[in-house]
Amino acid sequence: MYSLAVSDHFMIAHSFVGEVFGPAQQLHGATYAVELELRRARLDGSGLVCDIGLALAALKAALSELDYRNLDEAPEFRGRNTTTEFLAGEIFRRLKARIDAGALGPGAKGALASMRVTLRESPVAWAAFEAALD
Amino acid sequence: MYSLAVSDHFMIAHSFVGEVFGPAQQLHGATYAVELELRRARLDGSGLVCDIGLALAALKAALSELDYRNLDEAPEFRGRNTTTEFLAGEIFRRLKARIDAGALGPGAKGALASMRVTLRESPVAWAAFEAALD
Amino acid sequence: MYSLAVSDHFMIAHSFVGEVFGPAQQLHGATYAVELELRRARLDGSGLVCDIGLALAALKAALSELDYRNLDEAPEFRGRNTTTEFLAGEIFRRLKARIDAGALGPGAKGALASMRVTLRESPVAWAAFEAALD
Amino acid sequence: MYSLAVSDHFMIAHSFVGEVFGPAQQLHGATYAVELELRRARLDGSGLVCDIGLALAALKAALSELDYRNLDEAPEFRGRNTTTEFLAGEIFRRLKARIDAGALGPGAKGALASMRVTLRESPVAWAAFEAALD
Amino acid sequence: MYSLAVSDHFMIAHSFVGEVFGPAQQLHGATYAVELELRRARLDGSGLVCDIGLALAALKAALSELDYRNLDEAPEFRGRNTTTEFLAGEIFRRLKARIDAGALGPGAKGALASMRVTLRESPVAWAAFEAALD
Amino acid sequence: MYSLAVSDHFMIAHSFVGEVFGPAQQLHGATYAVELELRRARLDGSGLVCDIGLALAALKAALSELDYRNLDEAPEFRGRNTTTEFLAGEIFRRLKARIDAGALGPGAKGALASMRVTLRESPVAWAAFEAALD
Repeated sequence: MYSLAVSDHFMIAHSFVGEVFGPAQQLHGATYAVELELRRARLDGSGLVCDIGLALAALKAALSELDYRNLDEAPEFRGRNTTTEFLAGEIFRRLKARIDAGALGPGAKGALASMRVTLRESPVAWAAFEAALD
Repeated sequence: MYSLAVSDHFMIAHSFVGEVFGPAQQLHGATYAVELELRRARLDGSGLVCDIGLALAALKAALSELDYRNLDEAPEFRGRNTTTEFLAGEIFRRLKARIDAGALGPGAKGALASMRVTLRESPVAWAAFEAALD
Repeated sequence: MYSLAVSDHFMIAHSFVGEVFGPAQQLHGATYAVELELRRARLDGSGLVCDIGLALAALKAALSELDYRNLDEAPEFRGRNTTTEFLAGEIFRRLKARIDAGALGPGAKGALASMRVTLRESPVAWAAFEAALD
Repeated sequence: MYSLAVSDHFMIAHSFVGEVFGPAQQLHGATYAVELELRRARLDGSGLVCDIGLALAALKAALSELDYRNLDEAPEFRGRNTTTEFLAGEIFRRLKARIDAGALGPGAKGALASMRVTLRESPVAWAAFEAALD
Repeated sequence: MYSLAVSDHFMIAHSFVGEVFGPAQQLHGATYAVELELRRARLDGSGLVCDIGLALAALKAALSELDYRNLDEAPEFRGRNTTTEFLAGEIFRRLKARIDAGALGPGAKGALASMRVTLRESPVAWAAFEAALD
Repeated sequence: MYSLAVSDHFMIAHSFVGEVFGPAQQLHGATYAVELELRRARLDGSGLVCDIGLALAALKAALSELDYRNLDEAPEFRGRNTTTEFLAGEIFRRLKARIDAGALGPGAKGALASMRVTLRESPVAWAAFEAALD
């Protein structure tokens, strides 16, 4: 199995609901360094998992929907805690929709086996979501 | 599958038995940067793999049993080479016992699917142990 | 000249005033990985720049004044843009006050020559403030 | 499952054929930081996945076949784009041949379950190839 | 003294002339991760060393003159070894010309005290050039 | 001013004397990732601060005097606490003696302006020693 991974980052404000979050119940924020890993069993005719320029552009486009925002005011997250693991899953789903719509080129869509989205929130913590791409 | 990972480190002295170890047969030591990755198929009601504060505390507690020690004098390692890969497995087992005893909260115990413990011993080498959590 | 450096991090929300900031005029946030470097011409009798435990505790104490806060609502920053470079200077001043009050031990205060505070805000940007300690 | 990983790097020139590569169709080059991860279900009698010195030597030997070369002039790559993902697979195959020939010692060959080769080409991109070792 | 630093990277092919270079006399290549550090004694009215967006754009513009090229064929480097330390100095000079031409805004030009350009060529080597900005 | 830096690492056991060291009074150990930075105002005729191969070899030779040892039993450190900052200074002095003896080539000795030795002991702490080379 081959992997190709690209990285970018975004910066948001948010707060959490629930005693388990302690001081993180206050409005604070985070820089998330994001890594998108795409897996594929065989390379395409150019020797690629996919066009790395398209992968970087798709990641930047997905992150720009969240970058420089207060997630507490985002209608789509109403009633949800935007934890690092939740955001990893959410960015996975948004990237999958972009891939299904052809963002990585027509050949990539059916050929990619799985995808992993990792968010590093601090020097001591990260979260990820991975799943098969059918 | 979701992952949550937290990091810490510990510093020990030890030596190895066997010609394969070359100069590492002498008493020397290491700083191990440790990463604990916990995996779970669905997030809990707060949007978490588990309470990150409990995860950091469980990791620190497990590492404090080894930190600042000469492992050659540890009764529990008598007759064993405390290689990086062995220590990754050993810390996995100690963390699993803590999780079974409720260290990550009552909900985490049955919900976690697997766990990976990674020890970085130098800029050019690391080892890990991972297994399912039943 | 000897240096000793210790690291920690904090997470805040804030926004900036001024067209130069573009989308960062919206409420967003950041994780800052912070490094405190202390410099001294000669080591003390124990072979130290200063007690590393005290340095870590002083850094944590200074950062805890900011951690998990919305800096737009902090009275002490009213009318200021809490840019990364400004925060580096601000944390320098708060650490200097702690050192003057003895936070690094009685011997460190007069012996330290200079100090540098570095804040890494993302994989592609950091800022710092350094000055002599008289 | 246990893992042991070792790292090294190599520096090459190459160019790519195909419009998808944009400016990378020109002759340019890269530093590849390489990580070799070896996996094994049970440690050997010394407590090892394999002799780390042999693993580092095998990796260095495999990379020295490519280091400081213009891959466009390498006969073995004629008609192939030496993309990062292709090179990860190629280094995997060369390392597998070395392992089959005994480079990691007589005990390692049959005992290793799988192997992963990762090439970091820049701060924002890496590729990998992994497969079972039969 | 305040610092602001931004990062980017570029990838080139080149070879060196002279026995001291050993196998690097062959055509090979490198990825250079580049850091631009700008220093200033007092922040501007917005609380900045300079506009970080302009700094990132100036760095990208300077690196794009070299990116994806074979430096052996660059007329401006004829007869020079494009070592990492030489390239750090060359990028410094190109960035200084851009700053003198107003690339960091009209206020930055006279206010910046010094600048440092660092090129990381591999996990085990980097070079830098720094000088005052008059 | 130009800089060239190279990196390596070493692993030792030791203990400290003095209550200030807390649990580090017990025999423990550390991996030190070491960076040697050499500074020079003008490059040599080849475009170099110095031969990078000689710099890596000199660093490795200096570190090999300490690697895989119990520093508590080293006669040259009797009565000294081998703290990270002390070791940075000690390695500086050993490297300076090697440079004075010609380890970086005949041209480097008089041309180098200053040198910095940095030891990273853990993800949250490092120490350094720097001084002019006369």
